Amino acid sequence: MPFVIVENNIRGQEMNAFRFKTMDDFREMLEVLPVPDTQAIEEAALRNSMLTKPAGALGRLEDIAAWYAGWQGTPNPSIETPCIVVFAGNHGVTAHGVSAYPMDVTAQMVENFRSGGAAINQLCDEVGAELSVYPMQLDVPTADFTSQPAMTKEEFVEALSTGWNSVKTACDTLVVGEMGIGNTTAAAAVAAALFDRDPEIWVGRGTGIDESGITVKRAAVADGLSTHLEFLDDPFEALRRLGGKEMAAMAGAIARARIESIPVILDGFICTAAAAVLEKARPGALDHCIAGHLSAEAAHGRLLDSIGKLPLLRLGLRLGEGTGGALAIPVVRAALRCHSGMATFEEARVSGRTK
Amino acid sequence: MPFVIVENNIRGQEMNAFRFKTMDDFREMLEVLPVPDTQAIEEAALRNSMLTKPAGALGRLEDIAAWYAGWQGTPNPSIETPCIVVFAGNHGVTAHGVSAYPMDVTAQMVENFRSGGAAINQLCDEVGAELSVYPMQLDVPTADFTSQPAMTKEEFVEALSTGWNSVKTACDTLVVGEMGIGNTTAAAAVAAALFDRDPEIWVGRGTGIDESGITVKRAAVADGLSTHLEFLDDPFEALRRLGGKEMAAMAGAIARARIESIPVILDGFICTAAAAVLEKARPGALDHCIAGHLSAEAAHGRLLDSIGKLPLLRLGLRLGEGTGGALAIPVVRAALRCHSGMATFEEARVSGRTK
Repeated sequence: MPFVIVENNIRGQEMNAFRFKTMDDFREMLEVLPVPDTQAIEEAALRNSMLTKPAGALGRLEDIAAWYAGWQGTPNPSIETPCIVVFAGNHGVTAHGVSAYPMDVTAQMVENFRSGGAAINQLCDEVGAELSVYPMQLDVPTADFTSQPAMTKEEFVEALSTGWNSVKTACDTLVVGEMGIGNTTAAAAVAAALFDRDPEIWVGRGTGIDESGITVKRAAVADGLSTHLEFLDDPFEALRRLGGKEMAAMAGAIARARIESIPVILDGFICTAAAAVLEKARPGALDHCIAGHLSAEAAHGRLLDSIGKLPLLRLGLRLGEGTGGALAIPVVRAALRCHSGMATFEEARVSGRTK
Repeated sequence: MPFVIVENNIRGQEMNAFRFKTMDDFREMLEVLPVPDTQAIEEAALRNSMLTKPAGALGRLEDIAAWYAGWQGTPNPSIETPCIVVFAGNHGVTAHGVSAYPMDVTAQMVENFRSGGAAINQLCDEVGAELSVYPMQLDVPTADFTSQPAMTKEEFVEALSTGWNSVKTACDTLVVGEMGIGNTTAAAAVAAALFDRDPEIWVGRGTGIDESGITVKRAAVADGLSTHLEFLDDPFEALRRLGGKEMAAMAGAIARARIESIPVILDGFICTAAAAVLEKARPGALDHCIAGHLSAEAAHGRLLDSIGKLPLLRLGLRLGEGTGGALAIPVVRAALRCHSGMATFEEARVSGRTK
């Protein structure tokens, strides 16, 4: 599978050099969104009802096929060119000791992605997905959000643009993933700002911190919420002030996928927090997304509930990198393959129900 | 992918013409069973602890990799040659009206398997598995178990042998599936005989019968239990008297896979009921099996609990054919690929935990 590390967004500039100038430019982009093709959904539902199986016997696979039909605009959808885009960012809030790992690990893991040694590399090979990795100025971590906005307006808009440009229109399915020491703390802060401002609810063990680490993490989130309180009713301000560059890029990529009608499979807690910003800003903005999995990060289930998504897999992953989204690709592809490839009762001359 | 329909077990006779003469021959085969390679498991656990991810971050995938290592006898397991074997059988108990479909559908679906139109054909293509289909004398349904044993001793031993011979030693992963109008009734009766003789618990909607159908189905199971009561403490007698040829063949195939140390991914309710016979006869007989999915057939969860298996997927399937087991293959394969392909912290020069 092709693999690309995109330094300084060179590929983005070459391919697709669109840049948002302000946060409002991005906000405007969400005002008018493509909707699924209802005729394709109806045709897919009709086809599904004729396939050689009892009605509903493929369970959730049938729902996925109809949903995909809508976004691909065909009653016979398929996944041919899945893309996985991973954004990496560093976080000033790590100064408080919110992670079990040092910040250097973010850049080291980007090198690991480059040399093919990370979990997401294996999964991309397994599912036949193209992997692109965007290191987001790893030598310039976000500011410590407990005392100041994590990103300047310029940094935020730059990160949104990077995510926006990362989506190749040739992709027919998108998974966005992340790597960033400290980013479950940022994601917890963003989730708290969006849905319920009690840090207890949203703070979990991340890469595996102990009880004292959890206490530090909760305090950092509480401080961040308190510092930025007056701005947090705006979901984009919440993301800029409490999130990370990789989260802003994920939001940009998910929004772009919507504009291109490309279905998105969400990954874990951090990805879902970034996505939730869009849903909060514009209800329905995530209609082109399904939740790939339920992660072991404690608050992921609540966050998925908050955006009305039911996870496809529940395997206890808590790694990020897009791994949970990638794992869902073969299940989604299998759903489409059954839907598009099976014979109808008439074609196969199989008798229908007698009662 | 290769596809074979095996009429009259011709392939089996050519390849591997072993035949059990009596039920006791089969019983003896279970007395001494291969166990997993504990050294490979330990080496896999050590390797897992060094991979570039936080400890436990791949959740259940890590357990699967260690388990596979034990059965493949290598710390770097993989799936290269998965096989899916589907057995089809007809059931005399359908005379009571326990199914929403006529018995003809079993043979018609075998033709559909042959021409590539069924769900399992699409899934075999998707996951790169070889599919073999064994029609089990479809013109000779089992006897109506409410009044007599479903199979004669000869029929039962023949079906066990067919299953036993269906397993190619070149397969590195086995999924067994079934097709048989009426077989959720047979499976419910077998489950009841093995674990709890209340038909209410085990009878579900199968292909989608209505409330009055459920009543008929419960009555048939209750009658079967009552007719054969004195023989049901022997799990093999329970299978012979209440089950079906496809269920006996599945039990034979799963047992053979154990003898060959081939990991098995269990499918849904009927497959699990057939497997449970082995576990009940010889506790630990299913140590080489994982549960591929939790089906929508109401009692499947309870049946999995009864044999101590946790399902990998929960997608609401209730189709049989091995579809739920097939869907789990890419997830299992992804687990092995991550385990065997990822870099260690040392190889990738990634820093470890700081606290």
